[in-house]
Amino acid sequence: MAKGRPDALSGLFAPASVAVIGASNRVGTVGASLFRNVLGAGFRGVAYPVNPRWSSVSGVRCYPRVADLPETPELAVVIVPARDVAATVDELGALGTRGAIVISAGFREIGAAGATLEDEVVAAARRHRIALVGPNCFGLLNTDPEVSLNATFSESLPPRGNIAFVSQSGALCAGILRYGIAERIGFSRFVSVGNRAGIDENDLLASLGRDPATKVILLYVESLADGRRFLEVAREVTESTPVLVIKSGRTPAGERAAKSHTGSLAQSGRDQLYDALFEQSGVLRADSIGDLFRMAKVFSSGARLDGPRLAILTNSGGPGIVAADAAARAHLELPALAPPVRTELGRLLSRSAALANPVDMTADAGADQFRDSLRLLLREPEVDGALVIATPTGTLTAEAAARAIRKGRGASRKAVAACLFGLTDLSHEVGDLEAHGVPTFTFPEEAVQGLGSLARYRAWATRRRTEVRTFAVDRRAVRRTLRHARSLGVVVLPEYAAREVLGAYGVAFPDARRVRTLDGAQAAAESVGYPVVLKVASPDLSHKTDVGGVAMGIENASDLRTAWARMQDSLARKAPRARIEGFEVEAQIPDGKEVLLGIQRDPGFGPIVVFGMGGIYVEALRDVTFRLAPIRPLGARHMIESVRGFRVLQGVRGEPPSDLPALAEAIERVSQLAVEVPEIVELDLNPLLVRSEGAGVVAVDARIVLAPSSRSGPSASARR
Amino acid sequence: MAKGRPDALSGLFAPASVAVIGASNRVGTVGASLFRNVLGAGFRGVAYPVNPRWSSVSGVRCYPRVADLPETPELAVVIVPARDVAATVDELGALGTRGAIVISAGFREIGAAGATLEDEVVAAARRHRIALVGPNCFGLLNTDPEVSLNATFSESLPPRGNIAFVSQSGALCAGILRYGIAERIGFSRFVSVGNRAGIDENDLLASLGRDPATKVILLYVESLADGRRFLEVAREVTESTPVLVIKSGRTPAGERAAKSHTGSLAQSGRDQLYDALFEQSGVLRADSIGDLFRMAKVFSSGARLDGPRLAILTNSGGPGIVAADAAARAHLELPALAPPVRTELGRLLSRSAALANPVDMTADAGADQFRDSLRLLLREPEVDGALVIATPTGTLTAEAAARAIRKGRGASRKAVAACLFGLTDLSHEVGDLEAHGVPTFTFPEEAVQGLGSLARYRAWATRRRTEVRTFAVDRRAVRRTLRHARSLGVVVLPEYAAREVLGAYGVAFPDARRVRTLDGAQAAAESVGYPVVLKVASPDLSHKTDVGGVAMGIENASDLRTAWARMQDSLARKAPRARIEGFEVEAQIPDGKEVLLGIQRDPGFGPIVVFGMGGIYVEALRDVTFRLAPIRPLGARHMIESVRGFRVLQGVRGEPPSDLPALAEAIERVSQLAVEVPEIVELDLNPLLVRSEGAGVVAVDARIVLAPSSRSGPSASARR
Repeated sequence: MAKGRPDALSGLFAPASVAVIGASNRVGTVGASLFRNVLGAGFRGVAYPVNPRWSSVSGVRCYPRVADLPETPELAVVIVPARDVAATVDELGALGTRGAIVISAGFREIGAAGATLEDEVVAAARRHRIALVGPNCFGLLNTDPEVSLNATFSESLPPRGNIAFVSQSGALCAGILRYGIAERIGFSRFVSVGNRAGIDENDLLASLGRDPATKVILLYVESLADGRRFLEVAREVTESTPVLVIKSGRTPAGERAAKSHTGSLAQSGRDQLYDALFEQSGVLRADSIGDLFRMAKVFSSGARLDGPRLAILTNSGGPGIVAADAAARAHLELPALAPPVRTELGRLLSRSAALANPVDMTADAGADQFRDSLRLLLREPEVDGALVIATPTGTLTAEAAARAIRKGRGASRKAVAACLFGLTDLSHEVGDLEAHGVPTFTFPEEAVQGLGSLARYRAWATRRRTEVRTFAVDRRAVRRTLRHARSLGVVVLPEYAAREVLGAYGVAFPDARRVRTLDGAQAAAESVGYPVVLKVASPDLSHKTDVGGVAMGIENASDLRTAWARMQDSLARKAPRARIEGFEVEAQIPDGKEVLLGIQRDPGFGPIVVFGMGGIYVEALRDVTFRLAPIRPLGARHMIESVRGFRVLQGVRGEPPSDLPALAEAIERVSQLAVEVPEIVELDLNPLLVRSEGAGVVAVDARIVLAPSSRSGPSASARR
Repeated sequence: MAKGRPDALSGLFAPASVAVIGASNRVGTVGASLFRNVLGAGFRGVAYPVNPRWSSVSGVRCYPRVADLPETPELAVVIVPARDVAATVDELGALGTRGAIVISAGFREIGAAGATLEDEVVAAARRHRIALVGPNCFGLLNTDPEVSLNATFSESLPPRGNIAFVSQSGALCAGILRYGIAERIGFSRFVSVGNRAGIDENDLLASLGRDPATKVILLYVESLADGRRFLEVAREVTESTPVLVIKSGRTPAGERAAKSHTGSLAQSGRDQLYDALFEQSGVLRADSIGDLFRMAKVFSSGARLDGPRLAILTNSGGPGIVAADAAARAHLELPALAPPVRTELGRLLSRSAALANPVDMTADAGADQFRDSLRLLLREPEVDGALVIATPTGTLTAEAAARAIRKGRGASRKAVAACLFGLTDLSHEVGDLEAHGVPTFTFPEEAVQGLGSLARYRAWATRRRTEVRTFAVDRRAVRRTLRHARSLGVVVLPEYAAREVLGAYGVAFPDARRVRTLDGAQAAAESVGYPVVLKVASPDLSHKTDVGGVAMGIENASDLRTAWARMQDSLARKAPRARIEGFEVEAQIPDGKEVLLGIQRDPGFGPIVVFGMGGIYVEALRDVTFRLAPIRPLGARHMIESVRGFRVLQGVRGEPPSDLPALAEAIERVSQLAVEVPEIVELDLNPLLVRSEGAGVVAVDARIVLAPSSRSGPSASARR
């Protein structure tokens, strides 16, 4: 995303003038502190208080009403009671104001009455094309010295920096700012989106992705305003700007607390869906707020890791081992050091030093050895970055270590992180180290975790790109089948109809014949070849097995006769009213690994493809993975590789490997179906048999559920 | 473990007198700083410097040699060069000294020459029954004011507290002490075990478990000196004292760095083994050093959680949701609040407050509401403990929140943890809160994680106990079989012999007959019932399948004839020299879930039982679990429940549940075999078929590997 291009939100972040509607002198009120904060941060534009009750606020001339202002404020911060907000926005709009931050609460979050008020505010903002932040939010902060806007509750400000923070929780913001100040975490922008009636996290992502002052974007969300759009926007932003996210409400307990909407998926599935979304959009998910900021620190430092190969340099074995463990967990590699560099290290270091990776210089290493060894390691082409761990010794203070690391790094462009083991206070030297682009941590695991996220982001940004493939399919056949199903009033398609739909999209089924008589069945069986499966075809029987409508393992004509008679009998007794359209005689597939492939549709995420290992283990082990459609070739491949059962598909115990290219293509074809036929709300191929290399995949059971609404059409059921 | 009983190590921790051999005035030497540290910490006994080069050290009269001391020092700290240490220990022993801490390095850690010196030191200590700490260690610390012993390198001391820390890495100690000081983490004892030539972590665990000043024990280990003994000692200590551990070298990279010995198991298996060991002994494993101390803080506070039911009280929704997520991950429950308490909370709090759990008081909550709500929640019988999250607001400072939490807790004995969101500095009020037993954290996840470990420990300490069962078995049959195998010179037992061994221990196999002729085979097949399996019986054929020595699915006499002829032919061609002892005709088991059950033997851990799901998924998914034998009934049950495939055994898709009691008993019987027959170094039942409830388990393949040595006996191959 091109940095520096101004966008629709620049009026929010860098207004020439700000009016605070509801500014006040009354101590303890939001109106008082907010206006004081605007002044206190040294806003470079003009700030106007508006309040009929005061002639001046904080020493600045106050205007009774918006209409009295001497100029049109570019931005307004609104703190008046909820019932007055819509009118205020209207007045602002009449003047020509382009942005409004509504701090006031008492809207959708309190229930129906508030929701009505909120709708009025949104309508007013729309009428005047005002960019609306909030309501019910903490405000907005821009540390750019050309702007210096603090339109938040928070009096104390974190240092200026390159981290943008967007939060769905206002209350969280106050704590984060306090943490930022204590830990010297520098922010570029800080926005609380509140109820997201106007601007949401997607708008902000798009805007912050263009902001030259922002090097990393942090999101705290409890739900996504629009998962589909998030995917599009985040995919583009993460091309150039890393995005880190905390998505809370991830467990049922948390979700209950977040009172989030529930989709069609089970809770744990829903959280997996968020994981899929973040992965597909290159967004890195943090497990905890502490992790979020430790990761942010590394990105914020500007360190680059061009690959996963890490060198660890330490003066203490224990922390080095701990770091090596953490590196493996973070998918970083510890390359062996080449003999020449080992020789050089050997010259620098004491005889007891370990010259593997980690390089353990042992406790007698001094500052010079830290400096020179780091320099050597960073010169190695086999090393993408380094972690330096310094434990205090009698001869080496943390300050001396910090200086040595800074010097050893010199002008190298490789990532260097430091662990000054156990050090929690931020001395001048540590600050200096961080100012020179070396993020510094108390414990080695934290540093490694940060470097690991850097490597993950780099892998994303430099990944091989593939384009969504569009297969030649027979959409008319699909339309015909669906029309027919609708005409029969079915919502769950009978298997033979599901097969027509999938067949039209190029998914293979066993060779099958529709017959109406036993003679026909016997001819069909001879034609497709024994063993065969016999299935009833009826629009009214979506669970054929329950009524004796499926017979498997029919080896010969005699078996077939028996099965036929038994099925007729069973259907007559168990489904006397079902409309029987005939019987399918189908070749029984002798081999292949069972997988499942399906479509689900979610109100926020749209069409989703599900893939997993099939058979009994699906239910027991839930070995499934999700992806939002459309799915690219590499995405399909990635789905296959990400299930635990992947090794089964690769072939274990001397079995031949499965036909993975055919499986990947089937995933892409189902993805295309999911996107092109929105009437399908659910689809299950379970099992789909993956045969050995070159033999393709064959679906042996299919189930399709259509949207219950009769208003079916390309956009009726897919909410964008 | 009874607190307060003095033990063999009390002379180390609380000596009346300490001699520092190698004390010095030369600035920057260990001898100078160590003696100064002993004086500086205000040692309550008498400290004597010993060094022929000085007449006084740090102003204290110095003695040229140990023999010149005016009294026998109870403890000696030895800092002389490695080559002089053994002689020094001998001199100390001659005087009657009972404990020696050898700080000096240059022993086993530097290779063979050092190992020889170390053996001499150990021999000297043994001769004189001196308790030896080190060599190559950081020293020892006892903060008991009656003792005040700082025999370490570290000049600055952490506060006195109730955490004992034992470390295998000396270098780590310096960093931890620094961290302890910065974070006000109070220690009772602090010991660096170095090369563990004498005292090891097991001795210290046993001793610290009796120490009344110690409420929680922290271990940092890279390997365990004796895994078996650890299990015994830790099981006893954790009855009364929680033990938290960092075991590093857990990944191959980390283990390489730790240069740890490799056992018979693969690396990932080895780490799983440590997990098993810690779980069986009630030791809580931390994932990182940061986690270790966050957990320790909660234990150290003395907080008790009698159950997993947590109430969350917050003034900010976001952090509350984050905490609810973390609670689910930590296996804590958030019980619904009863209507009466909701009514009372409703009276206390603003209309916008959410009265579920988390209780979100919203941002306008003041200190009184924190106090009164907490009081209410702690009174609830449905609540075992509470987490209070306070985010700063205009009306509530962190200090006011801290005071309110302290008051709200009052005299309640339930655990209360606090999150003062984003606060990192330790103000007086926070210190006061912690002094009153409320551990306080920066972020909610950390607090929840700590409380979760408290609940886990509580569950361990109050677990239902079962005793190891000893089944009546036929040991003579086992001895006979093993003798016979030895006489034939085999190490891998043929299946029929493995069957004899397992049969003698009550493991069921399919009904089988040994035959020598086709006629015999046909009679046998009639007797056991078709379908049958035909297998060759030969001491020379441990992989029968490879030579065509197994035929399955024999349905009738005609099949059997064909199979017999084919097998004779194949054996004649592929194994012409094998000693054929006959053929087994075995009933083919028609059903059952495939699991595997086995024995492995590890030099440090002794006999281990392995259990997991069988078939193709074992290799692919590695769904296995380990436990050190002997295994108790609940332990066996726990193994079954801890594999991912447990749900398959419970019965999915309408299948009947498997016979879990029979499976658990089979695990216990195999465990008994592992303990009683140490010659068996490896055993595999793969697959073992678990049939439906009441139908038992049947092993269909068995493989036993004996120790290669001929010196077999009850103790030859099981290192204790």
